[in-house]
Amino acid sequence: MSEPQTYGKTFNAWRKGAGRVWTDYTAHPFVEGLRTGELPRASFIHYLIQDYVFLVHFSRAWSLAVVKAETLNEMKVCAGTVDALVNHEMALHVRTCAEQGISEDTLFNAAEADANLAYTRFVMDAGLQGDFLDMMAALAPCVMGYGEIGHRLGQAGAKDNPYQDWIDTYAGADYQGLCGVVGGMIDTAVALRLGDQPSSLPRWSHLQARFTKATALEVGFWTMGLNP
Amino acid sequence: MSEPQTYGKTFNAWRKGAGRVWTDYTAHPFVEGLRTGELPRASFIHYLIQDYVFLVHFSRAWSLAVVKAETLNEMKVCAGTVDALVNHEMALHVRTCAEQGISEDTLFNAAEADANLAYTRFVMDAGLQGDFLDMMAALAPCVMGYGEIGHRLGQAGAKDNPYQDWIDTYAGADYQGLCGVVGGMIDTAVALRLGDQPSSLPRWSHLQARFTKATALEVGFWTMGLNP
Amino acid sequence: MSEPQTYGKTFNAWRKGAGRVWTDYTAHPFVEGLRTGELPRASFIHYLIQDYVFLVHFSRAWSLAVVKAETLNEMKVCAGTVDALVNHEMALHVRTCAEQGISEDTLFNAAEADANLAYTRFVMDAGLQGDFLDMMAALAPCVMGYGEIGHRLGQAGAKDNPYQDWIDTYAGADYQGLCGVVGGMIDTAVALRLGDQPSSLPRWSHLQARFTKATALEVGFWTMGLNP
Amino acid sequence: MSEPQTYGKTFNAWRKGAGRVWTDYTAHPFVEGLRTGELPRASFIHYLIQDYVFLVHFSRAWSLAVVKAETLNEMKVCAGTVDALVNHEMALHVRTCAEQGISEDTLFNAAEADANLAYTRFVMDAGLQGDFLDMMAALAPCVMGYGEIGHRLGQAGAKDNPYQDWIDTYAGADYQGLCGVVGGMIDTAVALRLGDQPSSLPRWSHLQARFTKATALEVGFWTMGLNP
Repeated sequence: MSEPQTYGKTFNAWRKGAGRVWTDYTAHPFVEGLRTGELPRASFIHYLIQDYVFLVHFSRAWSLAVVKAETLNEMKVCAGTVDALVNHEMALHVRTCAEQGISEDTLFNAAEADANLAYTRFVMDAGLQGDFLDMMAALAPCVMGYGEIGHRLGQAGAKDNPYQDWIDTYAGADYQGLCGVVGGMIDTAVALRLGDQPSSLPRWSHLQARFTKATALEVGFWTMGLNP
Repeated sequence: MSEPQTYGKTFNAWRKGAGRVWTDYTAHPFVEGLRTGELPRASFIHYLIQDYVFLVHFSRAWSLAVVKAETLNEMKVCAGTVDALVNHEMALHVRTCAEQGISEDTLFNAAEADANLAYTRFVMDAGLQGDFLDMMAALAPCVMGYGEIGHRLGQAGAKDNPYQDWIDTYAGADYQGLCGVVGGMIDTAVALRLGDQPSSLPRWSHLQARFTKATALEVGFWTMGLNP
Repeated sequence: MSEPQTYGKTFNAWRKGAGRVWTDYTAHPFVEGLRTGELPRASFIHYLIQDYVFLVHFSRAWSLAVVKAETLNEMKVCAGTVDALVNHEMALHVRTCAEQGISEDTLFNAAEADANLAYTRFVMDAGLQGDFLDMMAALAPCVMGYGEIGHRLGQAGAKDNPYQDWIDTYAGADYQGLCGVVGGMIDTAVALRLGDQPSSLPRWSHLQARFTKATALEVGFWTMGLNP
Repeated sequence: MSEPQTYGKTFNAWRKGAGRVWTDYTAHPFVEGLRTGELPRASFIHYLIQDYVFLVHFSRAWSLAVVKAETLNEMKVCAGTVDALVNHEMALHVRTCAEQGISEDTLFNAAEADANLAYTRFVMDAGLQGDFLDMMAALAPCVMGYGEIGHRLGQAGAKDNPYQDWIDTYAGADYQGLCGVVGGMIDTAVALRLGDQPSSLPRWSHLQARFTKATALEVGFWTMGLNP
């Protein structure tokens, strides 16, 4: 059995600071359904359609992060993430949905569930109101949470799990590598702005609050997925 | 002779950190022309027209500060400043220009000098890229610099100075009070985010750089004013 | 019996275009509870606390509209609305809540319901993504909807209605006047950008979609209010 | 001799609408110096350093365009342009400057000339104030202007021109292809929002004004380049 994944000390601190909400997210019944393979197909398709719309706005959010970046490396990592989202992760959704006879235009124009809208617009507004770190705190739960879930589900999956493709995507080296790169970039970004004792600053609790709220909105997203 | 004005400890630190650029701004030949009354009228009118356009965008910038505020007091001070700008300071320009036969529509649509555009868009982008403190660092040189200039010129002016109205506006209790309120709000905003040793953080040098750049852009604005 | 209120031809077109969603909003069971006075007090207080948080972000949104304004009148109307929200409408909530022993700090820091967050961040993002008209389409349902509801409930209220203060606020000349000013400004803003046949443009359906979505989010807000 | 390049009907209309300013930009003495190869090396290096800083902010601007995009194709083209800028065009500058002993860190932290700052922040603010089309109008002069210049200079260059690499970059199929893709995307974006008679709308003159102003700021950029 492999070691638990770590994606940097900032993420670890925020993850711990989110407390029970983090577990509500990463061990949500929807996730358990993916793990056992017993998630109803209708829920998965409903989730996938909404997640496509989510990724549209998530790509917009990572693009806003490029606008807010203050070092070349921050720009490159964020621009690379936009590219990964628009040209790769979204393509997975398109392929899977195409097998169900759902076109990409249908996906792009799907009616957005409120839990979906609440989450992505919260992230966008974190960027408009705050700085690069505020955005990272709002973006991290999705990126790294999927990494953590993927890693766990990839360890010992059910046989003939119909969701193996989904699990493999997030358990795979590409996605795990992305989480590592983003996590390392966040650690550097924090140090460059807040020094080596960031958690001693009042600012830290604001960042934690953004991370925890974004995590809570992930919980809402899974719950929405369960109810097609 | 009155004591030098102080508008809070953050402003004092930033002012000191800007070094010679601060003096280039507050003791610019344009300012000396206002003090002695010998500034050519054409320069003053040129300045006033550009400053009206400046205030349009400066009002937009303070409105963006409301978007970025994170406490009720920050919102109130910034919204109050927008109101002061749109409904009072701009009105002074309108009145003075009307005496010269220049209408408010003409002012609003005046061709914007590059030095003007560079300054205001720099401030807007500080808000888009950074957080509330980044905006404050970019906004402070104008607000407090005019306060400092007004206070100094109000001490012992030339007799029958044709620019006495301008001097009185910025030397007056209303404007000086605004500077004090803004300066106090900035001190609180810094403490709420960065604690009581903000200048020890790497972040501080970024804020100083924004303040110093905005001050340099003020120098460019006065120089533009001298060249109608 | 007075004539139905009109707040400009653009609003009327958007209102009509929203179809049944508009009635779901303006004749929501929550509104009927206000009209008959039978709304449970706990629902009203829950609503009032959330509406305070809403107004914080709504003030931010109107401030973003100042950033996006392109004429002096647009700036003035939007800046005036920010002032009305921050210094007047929010004060009503503060007074009413103070009578219940709820302080303004408690209001400002109240946990934000998801239906609340979804709505305000949708409006903010409309501003970040689109232009001034996109913001107006997202802001209009709240401003004018409350005007329409206030006007209707002000016509023939229940005796000793415990919600008479609320009704009077929105039925009153000040608020009705604000709706008229905003509606007129929107008509001018549309004409200045899209000419005299705006509804023939593809753009129009995007604006209608923003208006209708914001209206649907108002429905969600009332429903949230009913469930404290 | 090849036909003049066209990058779409919207660009052609805006280019024509800019009048003499367009020629001031594309036939600027700096450009003539590149064509004849007689541009002083110091001017070219000064330009290249400033252009690197320009591209940093231009990448931020194209990222903001992703935030503002409303169709999948708009997102893909803009995200692709960010990638081309960050990972290819900036790399050309890095290589050329490395030959002069100037590191990428030096480039990233170079003091920004005012003419540079004015231009990029004007583009960013066009995005903050307006919608996707406002951004396109502000972004088009740089993208397509360089395409037009590159195409012309690539036709019949001086022998042993020391600036042949620069010319080849913009005359080459990759860059010309990018201009074609961006121009086509803008045509579609205009049609999707403003229909098939966009130039009949009041909005059109605002877009033209943004395009013309951005073109004028390009003129200022070349002039700055001539004066190291």
